[in-house]
Amino acid sequence: MIKKKLLIISGTHGNEINPIWAVDKFKKISESNYRDENIEFIIGNPNAYKKGMRYIDVDLNRSFNINKESNIKNLYEIERAEYLLNNFGINGFQPCDIAIDLHTTTSSMGTSIVMYGRRKKDLYLAAILQNKLGLPIYLHEKDQKQTGFLVEAWPSGLVIEIGPVAQNHYDSSIVEKFVMILFSLNNIIKDLKNSEINLPEEVNVFVHQKSIDYPRDPNFRINALIHPERINKDWQILKKGDPLFLDMYGKSILYDENELVYPVFIGEAAYREKRIAMSFTKKERIKCSESWIEDI
Amino acid sequence: MIKKKLLIISGTHGNEINPIWAVDKFKKISESNYRDENIEFIIGNPNAYKKGMRYIDVDLNRSFNINKESNIKNLYEIERAEYLLNNFGINGFQPCDIAIDLHTTTSSMGTSIVMYGRRKKDLYLAAILQNKLGLPIYLHEKDQKQTGFLVEAWPSGLVIEIGPVAQNHYDSSIVEKFVMILFSLNNIIKDLKNSEINLPEEVNVFVHQKSIDYPRDPNFRINALIHPERINKDWQILKKGDPLFLDMYGKSILYDENELVYPVFIGEAAYREKRIAMSFTKKERIKCSESWIEDI
Repeated sequence: MIKKKLLIISGTHGNEINPIWAVDKFKKISESNYRDENIEFIIGNPNAYKKGMRYIDVDLNRSFNINKESNIKNLYEIERAEYLLNNFGINGFQPCDIAIDLHTTTSSMGTSIVMYGRRKKDLYLAAILQNKLGLPIYLHEKDQKQTGFLVEAWPSGLVIEIGPVAQNHYDSSIVEKFVMILFSLNNIIKDLKNSEINLPEEVNVFVHQKSIDYPRDPNFRINALIHPERINKDWQILKKGDPLFLDMYGKSILYDENELVYPVFIGEAAYREKRIAMSFTKKERIKCSESWIEDI
Repeated sequence: MIKKKLLIISGTHGNEINPIWAVDKFKKISESNYRDENIEFIIGNPNAYKKGMRYIDVDLNRSFNINKESNIKNLYEIERAEYLLNNFGINGFQPCDIAIDLHTTTSSMGTSIVMYGRRKKDLYLAAILQNKLGLPIYLHEKDQKQTGFLVEAWPSGLVIEIGPVAQNHYDSSIVEKFVMILFSLNNIIKDLKNSEINLPEEVNVFVHQKSIDYPRDPNFRINALIHPERINKDWQILKKGDPLFLDMYGKSILYDENELVYPVFIGEAAYREKRIAMSFTKKERIKCSESWIEDI
């Protein structure tokens, strides 16, 4: 039997409000179904949530690798990251082994898993979730511009990403999807404790290749939008000659590379400031290994 | 011949970015088609736009009736309202007669017109736009909680409201709708100058009755969401017994009044802070009057 404690984080981005509501709902309707010793719940960024903003000073979900001696320590999210680790980190007051961070996106990603790198424990969890729920997995790796994600600061952790939904917009169908995920996680953690879970043969992932920006004019202003034929087509194949952007004069800008890729986070509102119009991925099958189980 | 100058405002809310893009596109593709002496363009809230926020200090679109002697004058939007009036108000440096304020909503309003009160000039413009483009009109009146709208500070003015689209999310189909509106406005202002527009028989409006809040718990936290059967059903009839909200336990909260109403701005993300889940309207036909023309 494995002793595992799950940390469920909602509101890591304060304007992603449906997961917070879903957690409240899950707690209310499952009072006797979930056990406190299995799961802790916490709102990641309560101050940003109160203000309806993604963050106050900096993106909390890029703040978990900041050097504590640096001079940016007095930023709210840097302090909040430290608080979360001190309380719920593996060496914290209420130590948790696995972090599940609940996010929404304005992109048409459906219900999906995001994982960072190829830690065995993450692959194990992701494989189980994919096997049970059929979810696509975006494997984010080798992206030096984007680091410091929350779940990376725990021994194991995944992001659940559901969209499309506007920021600060309640959508009961999105809430229901999160509630369903919470019940599944609750069952999985119980089964993990009782060693009642078998690994599937393989896990299918969409592996991050690179992100591309919007076309911009010499003043760095965006001068073409996601093409109407590409918007809302997350996870769908993109091949040479397919339209990517549409400029102000109605001219299509085509994908001009030979690689077949599968774009994700197409047009995500929060990524514009990061100069990301979409990210390209490639499909990969990873054979599951019994060594993943030993590692959990 | 009528000498009229139109002021087109985009980005009055800094996170409603599609109208700003549409104005840029309109200018680029119509260089020789629109004449500077007919139209001025301005970004309402440039600082909020840069930050991707609705506003910096207070809602600019509720700031046009603030007493200038009051002690809140050093708020950014209060100063910005004064700047806009000093420059483009009817007594400003570049005086404009008609203000058209371009907005987006997260609600499924489609392309619509919002007007404030029953000024003859507004009714005239709205009647022409409805006759040409078939747009629904939300007539906002008798709402003491919501005042100080931008267009009310000009002799005539309307809001064009298009949705659904997420805040800070570019959507080329929404952009195209605004571009189409800009071309129509450009033609209308030309025709107005040449007195080539006839009034229709009547104008159909949805008249504001009241706004309702989300159900809340004793701590004023929202504890029920828009019902899945009501979300995205803007402009559609609501009658006694129809589901309005869905609480955390899956219980439906029904509409319990006898009045037949047509809800609008259902679940608009930006109105949560104003404690508005939706606004109820009633249909009304207003007979067009030749006196409106004399007034323009």
